[in-house]
Amino acid sequence: MVSSDLLLLNGPNLNLLGIREPHIYGNTSLKELEEELIQFAESRGCALHTFQSNHEGDLVERIHRSKDVKGIILNPGAFMSYSYSLRDAISSVSTPVVEVHISNIYSRESWRHKSVISDVVIGQISGFGKYSYMLGIEAIIYHTHSGAV
Amino acid sequence: MVSSDLLLLNGPNLNLLGIREPHIYGNTSLKELEEELIQFAESRGCALHTFQSNHEGDLVERIHRSKDVKGIILNPGAFMSYSYSLRDAISSVSTPVVEVHISNIYSRESWRHKSVISDVVIGQISGFGKYSYMLGIEAIIYHTHSGAV
Amino acid sequence: MVSSDLLLLNGPNLNLLGIREPHIYGNTSLKELEEELIQFAESRGCALHTFQSNHEGDLVERIHRSKDVKGIILNPGAFMSYSYSLRDAISSVSTPVVEVHISNIYSRESWRHKSVISDVVIGQISGFGKYSYMLGIEAIIYHTHSGAV
Amino acid sequence: MVSSDLLLLNGPNLNLLGIREPHIYGNTSLKELEEELIQFAESRGCALHTFQSNHEGDLVERIHRSKDVKGIILNPGAFMSYSYSLRDAISSVSTPVVEVHISNIYSRESWRHKSVISDVVIGQISGFGKYSYMLGIEAIIYHTHSGAV
Amino acid sequence: MVSSDLLLLNGPNLNLLGIREPHIYGNTSLKELEEELIQFAESRGCALHTFQSNHEGDLVERIHRSKDVKGIILNPGAFMSYSYSLRDAISSVSTPVVEVHISNIYSRESWRHKSVISDVVIGQISGFGKYSYMLGIEAIIYHTHSGAV
Amino acid sequence: MVSSDLLLLNGPNLNLLGIREPHIYGNTSLKELEEELIQFAESRGCALHTFQSNHEGDLVERIHRSKDVKGIILNPGAFMSYSYSLRDAISSVSTPVVEVHISNIYSRESWRHKSVISDVVIGQISGFGKYSYMLGIEAIIYHTHSGAV
Amino acid sequence: MVSSDLLLLNGPNLNLLGIREPHIYGNTSLKELEEELIQFAESRGCALHTFQSNHEGDLVERIHRSKDVKGIILNPGAFMSYSYSLRDAISSVSTPVVEVHISNIYSRESWRHKSVISDVVIGQISGFGKYSYMLGIEAIIYHTHSGAV
Amino acid sequence: MVSSDLLLLNGPNLNLLGIREPHIYGNTSLKELEEELIQFAESRGCALHTFQSNHEGDLVERIHRSKDVKGIILNPGAFMSYSYSLRDAISSVSTPVVEVHISNIYSRESWRHKSVISDVVIGQISGFGKYSYMLGIEAIIYHTHSGAV
Amino acid sequence: MVSSDLLLLNGPNLNLLGIREPHIYGNTSLKELEEELIQFAESRGCALHTFQSNHEGDLVERIHRSKDVKGIILNPGAFMSYSYSLRDAISSVSTPVVEVHISNIYSRESWRHKSVISDVVIGQISGFGKYSYMLGIEAIIYHTHSGAV
Amino acid sequence: MVSSDLLLLNGPNLNLLGIREPHIYGNTSLKELEEELIQFAESRGCALHTFQSNHEGDLVERIHRSKDVKGIILNPGAFMSYSYSLRDAISSVSTPVVEVHISNIYSRESWRHKSVISDVVIGQISGFGKYSYMLGIEAIIYHTHSGAV
Amino acid sequence: MVSSDLLLLNGPNLNLLGIREPHIYGNTSLKELEEELIQFAESRGCALHTFQSNHEGDLVERIHRSKDVKGIILNPGAFMSYSYSLRDAISSVSTPVVEVHISNIYSRESWRHKSVISDVVIGQISGFGKYSYMLGIEAIIYHTHSGAV
Amino acid sequence: MVSSDLLLLNGPNLNLLGIREPHIYGNTSLKELEEELIQFAESRGCALHTFQSNHEGDLVERIHRSKDVKGIILNPGAFMSYSYSLRDAISSVSTPVVEVHISNIYSRESWRHKSVISDVVIGQISGFGKYSYMLGIEAIIYHTHSGAV
Repeated sequence: MVSSDLLLLNGPNLNLLGIREPHIYGNTSLKELEEELIQFAESRGCALHTFQSNHEGDLVERIHRSKDVKGIILNPGAFMSYSYSLRDAISSVSTPVVEVHISNIYSRESWRHKSVISDVVIGQISGFGKYSYMLGIEAIIYHTHSGAV
Repeated sequence: MVSSDLLLLNGPNLNLLGIREPHIYGNTSLKELEEELIQFAESRGCALHTFQSNHEGDLVERIHRSKDVKGIILNPGAFMSYSYSLRDAISSVSTPVVEVHISNIYSRESWRHKSVISDVVIGQISGFGKYSYMLGIEAIIYHTHSGAV
Repeated sequence: MVSSDLLLLNGPNLNLLGIREPHIYGNTSLKELEEELIQFAESRGCALHTFQSNHEGDLVERIHRSKDVKGIILNPGAFMSYSYSLRDAISSVSTPVVEVHISNIYSRESWRHKSVISDVVIGQISGFGKYSYMLGIEAIIYHTHSGAV
Repeated sequence: MVSSDLLLLNGPNLNLLGIREPHIYGNTSLKELEEELIQFAESRGCALHTFQSNHEGDLVERIHRSKDVKGIILNPGAFMSYSYSLRDAISSVSTPVVEVHISNIYSRESWRHKSVISDVVIGQISGFGKYSYMLGIEAIIYHTHSGAV
Repeated sequence: MVSSDLLLLNGPNLNLLGIREPHIYGNTSLKELEEELIQFAESRGCALHTFQSNHEGDLVERIHRSKDVKGIILNPGAFMSYSYSLRDAISSVSTPVVEVHISNIYSRESWRHKSVISDVVIGQISGFGKYSYMLGIEAIIYHTHSGAV
Repeated sequence: MVSSDLLLLNGPNLNLLGIREPHIYGNTSLKELEEELIQFAESRGCALHTFQSNHEGDLVERIHRSKDVKGIILNPGAFMSYSYSLRDAISSVSTPVVEVHISNIYSRESWRHKSVISDVVIGQISGFGKYSYMLGIEAIIYHTHSGAV
Repeated sequence: MVSSDLLLLNGPNLNLLGIREPHIYGNTSLKELEEELIQFAESRGCALHTFQSNHEGDLVERIHRSKDVKGIILNPGAFMSYSYSLRDAISSVSTPVVEVHISNIYSRESWRHKSVISDVVIGQISGFGKYSYMLGIEAIIYHTHSGAV
Repeated sequence: MVSSDLLLLNGPNLNLLGIREPHIYGNTSLKELEEELIQFAESRGCALHTFQSNHEGDLVERIHRSKDVKGIILNPGAFMSYSYSLRDAISSVSTPVVEVHISNIYSRESWRHKSVISDVVIGQISGFGKYSYMLGIEAIIYHTHSGAV
Repeated sequence: MVSSDLLLLNGPNLNLLGIREPHIYGNTSLKELEEELIQFAESRGCALHTFQSNHEGDLVERIHRSKDVKGIILNPGAFMSYSYSLRDAISSVSTPVVEVHISNIYSRESWRHKSVISDVVIGQISGFGKYSYMLGIEAIIYHTHSGAV
Repeated sequence: MVSSDLLLLNGPNLNLLGIREPHIYGNTSLKELEEELIQFAESRGCALHTFQSNHEGDLVERIHRSKDVKGIILNPGAFMSYSYSLRDAISSVSTPVVEVHISNIYSRESWRHKSVISDVVIGQISGFGKYSYMLGIEAIIYHTHSGAV
Repeated sequence: MVSSDLLLLNGPNLNLLGIREPHIYGNTSLKELEEELIQFAESRGCALHTFQSNHEGDLVERIHRSKDVKGIILNPGAFMSYSYSLRDAISSVSTPVVEVHISNIYSRESWRHKSVISDVVIGQISGFGKYSYMLGIEAIIYHTHSGAV
Repeated sequence: MVSSDLLLLNGPNLNLLGIREPHIYGNTSLKELEEELIQFAESRGCALHTFQSNHEGDLVERIHRSKDVKGIILNPGAFMSYSYSLRDAISSVSTPVVEVHISNIYSRESWRHKSVISDVVIGQISGFGKYSYMLGIEAIIYHTHSGAV
């Protein structure tokens, strides 16, 4: 039985997963990744909903409507560097958000070192390939099941 | 049966865990935390060795000797802000290192936002309380068991 | 009789007014606020049109089509910090624009201190809660009825 | 019947209004402007007291003695750029202060873009010529008559 | 006979060409310019496709789908200053991109001096009015017909 | 029949073209390049004069004497980074100047990203190898034959 | 018997001591504090003269006339941040000056972290409430009675 | 016969001339210097009026009343570093102002290298001791007697 | 009778006192200074414990064990510039700390102007030679005996 | 009778005087200016030698040979911004140098605000058109005839 | 016969020489290098003592005890970037120190470009592999045998 | 027998060696120094060619022609601070270059701390007076005779 719903949000260019710069992002397509993550979440008793968009406004509004889930795993893509709108949207709702990145953002270009959303999320996980998402799902479960964070 | 050894490294002031600023770091002592993490690692088939020091040179040398383990979970404490020695030590060895932080370093003082080691580790996890360590252990296991990162 | 039309433009996240961070933005919903402002404008002989969007392109295009009004009262939300597109749109039309902010942007986070549009608008009003909008309406009327500014 | 007293404070060089750079500041002299604003305030049920000085200490001390009024409309002139004494004076009293500027300070020299007092006042209004003062009077009335800002 | 297809991409506010700030951008409308450029390209044996959008996501996705052309002439408009999403999109595809600007961006406001995409394109051309586009078309033809760049 | 004269100016170290860092600058010698460009200009009805120097003063004085030509194509080499004398020389004469660079200066060392002359020339072309020069010749012809830039 | 005279100088807004922000500056009025310090100085054999002004010029001129005392205890208030005139006045006389601050200026707003006079005084004492003044008196006595500093 | 009146303005701490730091400012007192300069001006057909103040407001107001003279020789002292009020006063009147400094401000402390008034005066003279004033008088005479500057 | 214990902590290189740069630090050796300070403390009813180390970790751990004293007088030496570990140690305990410096750190090299610990101590005293320590002892006594700071 | 020799040094682009940007630099040619200055110097008993070059090395070497004169009036032109070689040349000889600028360098482009030679010359004069040179000649005479600077 | 003693000091991570990043630091182990340098020094009549530590305090104290040698050859490793304690230790003793680096620190990461000790040593040598040490030994011998540096 | 040729290059103002600032650069003339270095080189089996110029272009072109030597010892003088042309010349040839400085550039003016050529040379030696040159000769010999650097 599934006891809680989670939302997986992917930002701009992540629809190209498996195609774009595979030496950094791997060969798995977004669809394949989402299916693997849905199964992973199910094995831990959660229903994972997925959503990807290249439009800032769409992500902002999906977060506005996030009362339907217990938590969000968000890979903001390049929006991490400048989308104060996304930041305000996260601050506007009470749903907990975990920020994940596939690659180690700190060993890439300097503009990827500073995330404008990292201080309004629960925590940040970066550098573990597709496992960043799995660790993000576990993190949101830990956070939801305990009051100790 | 335990199949791999991991090393838990804690940097300066973390020996005060449970005593220092408990509103940020919680009430568990370092000893209690280490015991809980050793059990957690064991449940995933790993033997966790633990080491804490307030001396930069000690941590540097422990990393130098890290061929005895498959990976390191490192909470650098305040060394994250300036210890280029620690950074050089990590670069000097081939053992993979995961950087973890108990609190969300991005929502605290600005000098905690920049880690001088974050671009030479595998990845970084911050903000999940004691669960940051558990996620770190899982991350190093994922990293070790796959070539896909 | 209504002698001139004005446009009230609200940027991203302002659809959450009354819900989001009420200690900063108050308890009135956007719909309630818009109705109060329409009445306020009517009492001063103006018809107030309203438009809110979380999409930068929609706001840009609404400004492009603003020949139908005598002036714009614009709360850019987080777009104030980076939307050079919005700035270019304002420069592209001859309709006068007044920039308003509900809170005192200068006593909040530092990234809210610098507006990239403030030097292409007529003037800026910030810090007076919902009254910032009413002062904005009066300001655009003063500006329109005189040539002395 | 006049129900509340307000104070209009003008800083250095504003005694030259109407003479100095009329393309920026207009042709009205300070005396004429003060009279027009006294009438404007009276029409809204307020008695407006006026004070101008080129001496920082005089302005600081007038603010110290401001318990006699319900609010202050302050045009700090060039003191906006460096007078931390004026800032401390405003913080030292409980009288609400509205900061006004005749011209749009954000479209002039860069040293006029940053006001050292803007985060200790209620709000800021700039760019509407003499109407900046009138909007300032209305703003302080809104602020005084409601608790909702 | 047309031997290769090119894509002309125009970013935000360029739909206002001929209307917006004509002392900088000239009197030709976007439609007129596109027609002149289509003919110019045809005279050099190329079919020029055109696309303009004020939406970042639309430009990103058009670049994603650019396998149908041999090269892109891109005027990013204000996106040049901050759209790391556009930058990522360009890096994601193998289609060569030439960046063009109507005006000399280096003799205008300082925020126009730094393009976040200029190091991931083939080259940059700025300052020659509508001829910037024509030089851009020739540049992409030179680049495509030789391996020597 | 040749109807107008142009001047090709090459700055320091460009006499080594074909020898120096061929992976960046190609294998063509300066002499070969100049001959190819003279023919290219001739095919467009222009006589191209050429001059190269490693001495700042020589380039400054050649620009002073540039009344004999209709326009200058200038590759300033490393002088782009610091020669305010070259900049002043360009401002001192009415001959139009186009700045060209063989490589994409924005994807090389950071000190090559800022040209001290780019805001006093007509426009800048960079990144197209030897074709940068050809595009520069076409640009100066467009500029000279029209008043529309 | 009183053997030496000292001068206590207080800068702008310190006349409000006891009234202004008592959580920072305490409840003692300036007059009460001056009396307590006069007694304290007397107990150490010194006559303490006191002077407070909100006018920069008055403080400058009091320092000019300071040949009548053996040393100055100066709390510059907000003048610490910008009064280079005060700094020049201190450099102009040979009377030793000790700079004191009631609160710890380093744990308050960043503009209070840098004093423009701290490198021309004997030393600086900050953070000990009213005791900062007493330590200042003792410091000037130590300094005057010994040649060893 | 004296044909024009000039004003010599000296800012804060210059009343100590001859006493303060004589290795920098010389041994002549302000009174002696003023007398020597009055004679110097007389020999060139000018009546020199003198005024010194340590109070910013007094200097601002003396500049406001400067219609009685043909030009001002101003040594702003430390006000050069921060007095935007003095700057605004100079901009407010049409009387030409020459800025003079006794010492070479560019070979002293770095905060003396940048004058906030230097771009609103006719010109600046620094480094020639008392002769800086004499050169200043000659400069204002040159400026007044010719239209060629 | 001694009623309270204090700790005197000296950081790196202070063991060389009396030998190193005597024109800055005086001729007294550390041992002589410690003896003089022990007597000074005794005269005020306190037992002064002393500890010096060139090792960061030793100082950090001595602060960890500081429950045995009522307060700490700390001269951090060069650690003031970069030891965030020392800073964290001070924040980790409840023992009050006073920061002292022998010389006026604000009139020396610029890297000595900023202390990374000054905002987590009670207060700072600098510039009074050996008397800085004595004032530090008095400061900690004032602080301990009153609740008024 | 001529009693001393002076040298007038003009840097790059000043050979174009009278031709280049006459709204800034006037209509007088360099030759005419030099003749007027030679007569001016003669009237004050000095023989003025003149030298202009666009070559940095020539100016450096002319300064090396300056033992033949009592002083140098130097207009460095654009070399003021970057020629540390010129600066070293001035430091290398004992001949006093006065730096002059025709225009007020502080009201022009920001790169003209900072002269790399201004702290190794006697003093600087800027903003008085051709009179800057005459004031420079008088300044060097004052400096040479007195020891009081 | 050996006439003078020298000290070779190596900082953190240099014990890994030959193991760590051999493409930068070569294949020779520290022990092998030390032996080669001892022989080299002997051939020049000097006895070379060697010391390596990863502990800052140990290096500081070894420098304190350096009266036993005529000079120090110091490779500070990563301490070059932040150890102001090491800097103070060098300033505290009269033993001359030569700073050496195996690699060219100016062609590596930017944090290696600035050494906090370089202005308190005799001189610096970097970039010559193991020969940097040999040149350092020769430099200290030159320095010791002559007074001419 | 001489087995290899080396080139000694000296930049601007070094022809004044022995005359200019002897407290920094010593009393030896350039000619004397060159003779001493030729003998020194000869004793190590090398023929040293010498060249000095105050002209950037001459140095650039001497480097272009450097195939005749095995290595260059270059003292760039003030060109170290800004001559990117010199830097490009060094990059353009394969001859190894060692950068030397007579004085310790890191303990002098801040503009001497950053060399624009230091990352394209083999290594840098500074601070050892005339011995810097000798060490430079030895360094280039070490570099040439081994492949191990």
